[in-house]
Amino acid sequence: MANKDKQPKYDKIEELAKRRGFFWQSSEIHGSVAGFYDYAPIGAAIKRKWENLWREYFLQDDNFYEIEASNIMPQPVFVASGHLESFVDPIVKCKKCKHTERADQILEEELKEKFEGKTPEELLEVIKKHKIKCRSCGGLLEETGILNMMFPLNIGVGKNVVTSYLRPETAQSVYVNFSRNFNVLRKKLPLGLAIIGRAYRNEISPRNALLRMREFTQAELQIFFDPDNIEKHENWDEVKDEKITYMPANGKEQKEVTASALSKDLPKFYVYHAVFVQRFFLDVLKIPKKYFRFRELSKEERAFYNKYHFDVELLLDRWIEVGGVHYRTDHDLSGHSKVSKQDLSVQVGDKKVLPHVLELSFGVDRNVYSLMHIFYGEEEQGEKSEGRAVIRFPRKLSPFDCAVFPLVNKDGLNEKAKEVKILLQSSGFSVFYDDSGSVGRRYRRIDEIGVPAAITIDYDSMKDNTVTIRDRDEMKQIRVKVKDLPEKIKQFLEGKRIEDLQ
Amino acid sequence: MANKDKQPKYDKIEELAKRRGFFWQSSEIHGSVAGFYDYAPIGAAIKRKWENLWREYFLQDDNFYEIEASNIMPQPVFVASGHLESFVDPIVKCKKCKHTERADQILEEELKEKFEGKTPEELLEVIKKHKIKCRSCGGLLEETGILNMMFPLNIGVGKNVVTSYLRPETAQSVYVNFSRNFNVLRKKLPLGLAIIGRAYRNEISPRNALLRMREFTQAELQIFFDPDNIEKHENWDEVKDEKITYMPANGKEQKEVTASALSKDLPKFYVYHAVFVQRFFLDVLKIPKKYFRFRELSKEERAFYNKYHFDVELLLDRWIEVGGVHYRTDHDLSGHSKVSKQDLSVQVGDKKVLPHVLELSFGVDRNVYSLMHIFYGEEEQGEKSEGRAVIRFPRKLSPFDCAVFPLVNKDGLNEKAKEVKILLQSSGFSVFYDDSGSVGRRYRRIDEIGVPAAITIDYDSMKDNTVTIRDRDEMKQIRVKVKDLPEKIKQFLEGKRIEDLQ
Repeated sequence: MANKDKQPKYDKIEELAKRRGFFWQSSEIHGSVAGFYDYAPIGAAIKRKWENLWREYFLQDDNFYEIEASNIMPQPVFVASGHLESFVDPIVKCKKCKHTERADQILEEELKEKFEGKTPEELLEVIKKHKIKCRSCGGLLEETGILNMMFPLNIGVGKNVVTSYLRPETAQSVYVNFSRNFNVLRKKLPLGLAIIGRAYRNEISPRNALLRMREFTQAELQIFFDPDNIEKHENWDEVKDEKITYMPANGKEQKEVTASALSKDLPKFYVYHAVFVQRFFLDVLKIPKKYFRFRELSKEERAFYNKYHFDVELLLDRWIEVGGVHYRTDHDLSGHSKVSKQDLSVQVGDKKVLPHVLELSFGVDRNVYSLMHIFYGEEEQGEKSEGRAVIRFPRKLSPFDCAVFPLVNKDGLNEKAKEVKILLQSSGFSVFYDDSGSVGRRYRRIDEIGVPAAITIDYDSMKDNTVTIRDRDEMKQIRVKVKDLPEKIKQFLEGKRIEDLQ
Repeated sequence: MANKDKQPKYDKIEELAKRRGFFWQSSEIHGSVAGFYDYAPIGAAIKRKWENLWREYFLQDDNFYEIEASNIMPQPVFVASGHLESFVDPIVKCKKCKHTERADQILEEELKEKFEGKTPEELLEVIKKHKIKCRSCGGLLEETGILNMMFPLNIGVGKNVVTSYLRPETAQSVYVNFSRNFNVLRKKLPLGLAIIGRAYRNEISPRNALLRMREFTQAELQIFFDPDNIEKHENWDEVKDEKITYMPANGKEQKEVTASALSKDLPKFYVYHAVFVQRFFLDVLKIPKKYFRFRELSKEERAFYNKYHFDVELLLDRWIEVGGVHYRTDHDLSGHSKVSKQDLSVQVGDKKVLPHVLELSFGVDRNVYSLMHIFYGEEEQGEKSEGRAVIRFPRKLSPFDCAVFPLVNKDGLNEKAKEVKILLQSSGFSVFYDDSGSVGRRYRRIDEIGVPAAITIDYDSMKDNTVTIRDRDEMKQIRVKVKDLPEKIKQFLEGKRIEDLQ
């Protein structure tokens, strides 16, 4: 452990991810390309858990639904959305070796200042003034420009080729689907349409494992509503006294204010959903409060079409953006309406409305990574522990609900363990079965992947049909009857303490 | 109804899909591109159900796992897999108007013969002999060639660009991940690695809605095994007497033989998994037996690396391929090994093995479409029915477990209905809530989307806390206590008859 302590936490997480099967770089054996990661079984399991918790929580409303859509979309979609023109990064190229980098990023790293929102020309001036050199060959950086971050591709062949793009966000898939869905569903606002799906961005400098990828998963809920109702929400009273933690735009200090107080500056429909999002992180994902905040973006920082924009941030070694609450006005539907020449307004009661959009947006991979980072801990050797690394995932978010071990792989213990495994699986639990190596080794493995409960079948099990349950965090064990196991595990996952299960 | 009967079933399904919210063409408002479809809420729900049933069934083995991987992969992957060289279609171009089509397809349609596996030169000869004209301008078709069906794209910028492709099958993602996964998991064979994910093919002539798409979802399980063990499977005895229905290669008549009989020609490990796949369709998806068969592919029909190849076929208006059982030998791992210069063999006991691969492969969209097609029916007006269209999805595969309706939207019935809905949701059921229009209209809607049970809250409910459950197929109703509802619905989904729930 001593050695490990000197590693930065990012390196530890990546090392653990590789060693235990969470994630690693994609196509590794053929030389990976930066910004692409694959999930191994443990990582895939926790990603799926996160997605299912998200679905269950965000789609509670009767008029909120999940849809699924193509990742490839034709060019007019991105003319309408503005991505073709505006989804660009400033780049700088070395005249000598043609090495290309993001202009704002090289300056931020070299000069330790912020350069967001500057034009290529402005950036070039700074580069010249400070004589910034090419980081690849030391040559002169002389040319700046912009690069669209979408991946273009051609569909079809010959004269029938259609220029298309991999979507840079799932949101556009929802907007082009709005009208038909409104009509086949209940024809009511607010209407929520969600997608959990891939998005693609040709990032010039992908970095930090799952935190800035070129292909990634978003979970986004687009809520279409009547802008005349922006100052209310039917469940406002339930949230009005709840406190929200946020860093104000251009502010220096984090604030904690009630929803009511915040609703003096921001519309109630917006504030309601900010509370709703905060509850997801604090109550469902069980992020300790000090690791969560909103960050309000200033006019310069936010996209021009976002009238209000809170980022969701989690505290790793620094605050990391993992989601956002965006009031996009009618920017999207009016853009698609103009380019497609279709009226996307809808009849609500006796008036026609072009709905406004409130977007709740989350980066799934960033969330998965952040949860690993936040819940990862190391225990020194001491009274209670032999020294171990453990991810204390909330019980409902761990990759498996429980592990099942035969103490040894003989004398019928393994057959008995399989029976227990099948009993638990048929009761709806996800089970990690392991019969290799010593039990101590198996405990270490499940501690590191964060499985909250380990069920061991020992020689006593063969006599009296009981098994032990070990709690990952307290490392306490109790003994229960096999037939009571499904009910006990259910209660345990719901939060009951291990002692109280006896 | 009379009018509808004249429509081909494909048109009916597509019309229903649009009207009720299963699926429709992607980016429709901007002019769709052929071969791209989006799922609306009902279709997305049933697709998710299918995927979860697949997971639950195919990943029962302790050493079978699900992973998730990038859709974009660098070029060496497809050098190794052979796709760069061999994943091509023969095309023919009109010299006059540049219209391009698949050469074999135009010939098959014009001459009603099979032209699979012919070279571009051979096809050109047939075109010339029969004086086949351009279907766009009537001009002469004079030039044939081949077209790679993968979508290429560039990652990065400037001198750092990496040529990559959208994967044409999920399988390659598993092969490049095999080695690391083997080592972090139990280091045992057979090892199963599954992906449910997107694949992309630049089909020249996409057609038939979800049956031939350019972007589609596959569910594939790759089983890595020791070729020395190909003549056995630990559970062989459980399947040996089970009958398999299949159309032999180049055969004229479908056969039904026992697994034992088939194992005289095919290895037991292969036959075991064919039975396993057949059971999924017959027992889990509950496809009536006459709609299911395997088709053995001849040497000319199957990919050169598949030593044994059964397609899974379902009977719509004709037999449609929806999956396959492919024995790929060591083609994949040895290809990746050669190109990456990495030894992908593994230590098993006291020997080194380059595992062979048995692939169980399924097209998810094709399955969803076929299930709609097979289970769709129309009832004439008569003694039992007012005349209706209904999809008789198996109860566990319907988009929602049940529907909840307040009889009217007043007098507290709607509040009571919401309580019932929340009770059912918190018991783990997916619920379709509908309070719009007459109850008759709402029944018609859920019949058409295939929800198996409708729960109605009426005025009696307000008095005695009971509700009615209506069975979609029998159209019978029973009345039960609200508190018993979760247990009754559970039994109903498990297959109990509605009368027996009383």
